[in-house]
Amino acid sequence: MTADEMKKKYQDWVFKMSAYRMAMGIIGVDKMTVAPTAGAAYRDERTAYLAGELFSLETDPSMPEVLQGLIDDPSTDGDTRRACEKYQEEISHTLCIPKDEYVDFEKFSNESYDAWLQAKQKNDYAIFEPYLTKMIEEKKKQYAYRKKDTDLYDQMLDDFEPGMDQQKYDAFFAKIKEELLPLIQKVKAAKPIDDSFLKETYDIEEQKKFMDELLTYLHFDKSWGYQNETEHPFTDWTCENDCRVTTKYLPNSVTSAILSTVHEVGHAYYEHDVDPKYDGMILSDGISSGMHESQSRLCENYLGRTKDFWAYNFPHLQKHFPSQLGHVSLDAFVDALNVSVPSLVRTEADELTYPIHILIRYEIEKGLFNGTISAEHLDQTWNDMYEKYLGIHAEKVSEGILQDVHWSSGEFGYFPTYALGSAFAAQFVHTMRAQIDVDDLLKNDHYDRVIAWLKENIHHYGCRYDAKDILIKATGEEFNVQYYIDYLKDKYTKLYHLENV
Amino acid sequence: MTADEMKKKYQDWVFKMSAYRMAMGIIGVDKMTVAPTAGAAYRDERTAYLAGELFSLETDPSMPEVLQGLIDDPSTDGDTRRACEKYQEEISHTLCIPKDEYVDFEKFSNESYDAWLQAKQKNDYAIFEPYLTKMIEEKKKQYAYRKKDTDLYDQMLDDFEPGMDQQKYDAFFAKIKEELLPLIQKVKAAKPIDDSFLKETYDIEEQKKFMDELLTYLHFDKSWGYQNETEHPFTDWTCENDCRVTTKYLPNSVTSAILSTVHEVGHAYYEHDVDPKYDGMILSDGISSGMHESQSRLCENYLGRTKDFWAYNFPHLQKHFPSQLGHVSLDAFVDALNVSVPSLVRTEADELTYPIHILIRYEIEKGLFNGTISAEHLDQTWNDMYEKYLGIHAEKVSEGILQDVHWSSGEFGYFPTYALGSAFAAQFVHTMRAQIDVDDLLKNDHYDRVIAWLKENIHHYGCRYDAKDILIKATGEEFNVQYYIDYLKDKYTKLYHLENV
Repeated sequence: MTADEMKKKYQDWVFKMSAYRMAMGIIGVDKMTVAPTAGAAYRDERTAYLAGELFSLETDPSMPEVLQGLIDDPSTDGDTRRACEKYQEEISHTLCIPKDEYVDFEKFSNESYDAWLQAKQKNDYAIFEPYLTKMIEEKKKQYAYRKKDTDLYDQMLDDFEPGMDQQKYDAFFAKIKEELLPLIQKVKAAKPIDDSFLKETYDIEEQKKFMDELLTYLHFDKSWGYQNETEHPFTDWTCENDCRVTTKYLPNSVTSAILSTVHEVGHAYYEHDVDPKYDGMILSDGISSGMHESQSRLCENYLGRTKDFWAYNFPHLQKHFPSQLGHVSLDAFVDALNVSVPSLVRTEADELTYPIHILIRYEIEKGLFNGTISAEHLDQTWNDMYEKYLGIHAEKVSEGILQDVHWSSGEFGYFPTYALGSAFAAQFVHTMRAQIDVDDLLKNDHYDRVIAWLKENIHHYGCRYDAKDILIKATGEEFNVQYYIDYLKDKYTKLYHLENV
Repeated sequence: MTADEMKKKYQDWVFKMSAYRMAMGIIGVDKMTVAPTAGAAYRDERTAYLAGELFSLETDPSMPEVLQGLIDDPSTDGDTRRACEKYQEEISHTLCIPKDEYVDFEKFSNESYDAWLQAKQKNDYAIFEPYLTKMIEEKKKQYAYRKKDTDLYDQMLDDFEPGMDQQKYDAFFAKIKEELLPLIQKVKAAKPIDDSFLKETYDIEEQKKFMDELLTYLHFDKSWGYQNETEHPFTDWTCENDCRVTTKYLPNSVTSAILSTVHEVGHAYYEHDVDPKYDGMILSDGISSGMHESQSRLCENYLGRTKDFWAYNFPHLQKHFPSQLGHVSLDAFVDALNVSVPSLVRTEADELTYPIHILIRYEIEKGLFNGTISAEHLDQTWNDMYEKYLGIHAEKVSEGILQDVHWSSGEFGYFPTYALGSAFAAQFVHTMRAQIDVDDLLKNDHYDRVIAWLKENIHHYGCRYDAKDILIKATGEEFNVQYYIDYLKDKYTKLYHLENV
């Protein structure tokens, strides 16, 4: 095959895969937002078939040679070489799985999601337990096909965050335990901050009206993104100009949908801002889960919980809810928004206790895969760990083990990236604040200019560079967890006046 | 190949096509409801590729032999034989088109839809005109590939309504012109009925709340159907348990979204009620456009505009709009709902002038394909014909030639089925009313039992029998336009007290 023929074959292959991926993406978003539930079995069976078609494309036996040929060809440009390497890596993970098993897994994964949703709605872990048990076995089987010497859970961790393993995460979480658990105790003992006004009744239709204004502030343009509602908020994307964001409105919280939206729009910007020349190819996605979560959590916490973000937005929110917020000062509102109290639901957690939610999930995942924890009675194990670390436990499994969607589709190894991403974000923000006046921009309706910094330093690369290299490019140094610890210590010491404790 | 091998191959083929069709259906609904517009080009290109994959499946060169083999095999059951015959017919229409042209056409069709939408929004026919011109040429080319002796437009008419052609439609519309145009003139001269209260300002959020109640009355179950909003309301479906219905809310009309929803839910019931044993195969759809429109227009007009339908629903509607409707009597409301006044927009038209809107489109389509009418300045031609038949003309092309979506995707030959369907409906209703007490059921919240009659006599067959056979099975006689003429004459003579004219 000539170099031109190889390139043509490669481009065709990439385009075809992008078509199936687009279809799977839209079918998935449809399923999670509006698709009638009674049609799920019919759709799932056919979606699994299409996933099989994509699998066949991915594992086209002639492609490894083409990819290697392009990598070896000195005339291949850097972007294409990098893409070919990423495809090689991806293929190596799927090529080893028999197609029938892959298709069966896709079908099972959809069924497992349906079972999780039903179990959560009926508040009954027993409905989901057999699916979780089977899911763990399925994932073990899938990873065993790779025939690598390394631990299976280490491989899962590496898939979501290349370069990470249990040893590194153990060190990361040890630091979090050592530094943050005592701080959480101090905050617990400090004088509480009143946030009762955030938990009054907030009419959902009125919340939606404010949300429209907030999306405008966030410069989330409806021509390239749309928002819908789901049980579990998520972001999906197909190309530069198509990002789907969902949220969930709670009648007894004014901040839940807001912070969740700022978070998801953070994900959306990462995808939207990737250089459009990568559209449709493997380089067009965010580089890793940790990097993705760093962007969403940066927006949610390091921007969305600041005084200056609300200096602009709070008066608008007050207009929608005069009886609940009319008498509240900006300072009191922002303090309340940052209250730290151990709570059950991860997505609703404050910044300080958040990594402990992740620590618990990480320890459970480790246990599930090294055999020290079983899916049976995992609801009880879950509660025991919440009791141990945060001194609370869930009365309802919908607020305990069933709160998160991830395990229902076999995403083991994802959770730790949420905490890692938060720590990445602290490092990015440290540099960003030295270069631009973030507070001033937020206060003066220039959210887009903050995003522009993220685009220039992080987003536009897509998968062109590894996370560790992007960290160095953007901040001038390797990943350093200390920024995260310092940020949280500083913030909560001030907020709770712990200087004198 | 043995009979069993043929059957297996046939079933695999049917299943695979159903997977692609499901994907195309969901992608299409997504496009028309929520998909970000800026991503359209990226999606359209990939959707066209997937359409090409479906095309390749449909035109699998080994299938004609398999289908013929199964038809010839005496052990093949009647359902399968019928399905094979329908597939043969369908294949013969696609097999003759070169795949590249087919894929290009799919892509062009999506672009043409986007151009139509933009033209309508900007109220500028010139944006859409080149697409319409090209669309006509493309359709001519596609039909020419069939190499049939018959007129191309006759073939298009036959595609949407097997057995129909220009000669038959000419006779049908001649009867409509002869009988209804004079009646329309009489109504115009009669004392007008006050319907001004229907056109006051009706808050859209409040309309949506009533819609929820109406959908409950219609027994439209959210587990198998969902409703969304689009510029042009439509119904889509993938299987027994998945029907998507859309509507459009107008701030100055309380009836537009309501009647449109009753109409679309009529389509949805037809698909939902097809025997589930046909799910995923060609027999699972409605048999023809005329038959489909007969069911939607039966629901909209022969049920949704009756006094007894509103005897139940009007008090609920009044509760949502006390200031606009609190003082209006049921009789006055129903009379207003049936007012006949020549108007510009087909979907908003009353029953009496409705077939004239169709007549105009039919005459234009005929002209476009026999060369007596050109796409150039078609906005003017359109207005001239509205002037001639209804004495009105559109100030804005969005209410003139650009009001309908059909031509943007090349659906020439569809429009006449709306009028034909209305006439089918009159014949069905004549029989139905002789067998069940429709008024009593509607008044007493038993809409589902009326639908049950339609299911038993029409819906459940799917494509198992031709429209003409279903008409005979359900009503005991062949299609007879006189039921339609008599129904409209009787209704409007009474409504406008024309007995003495």
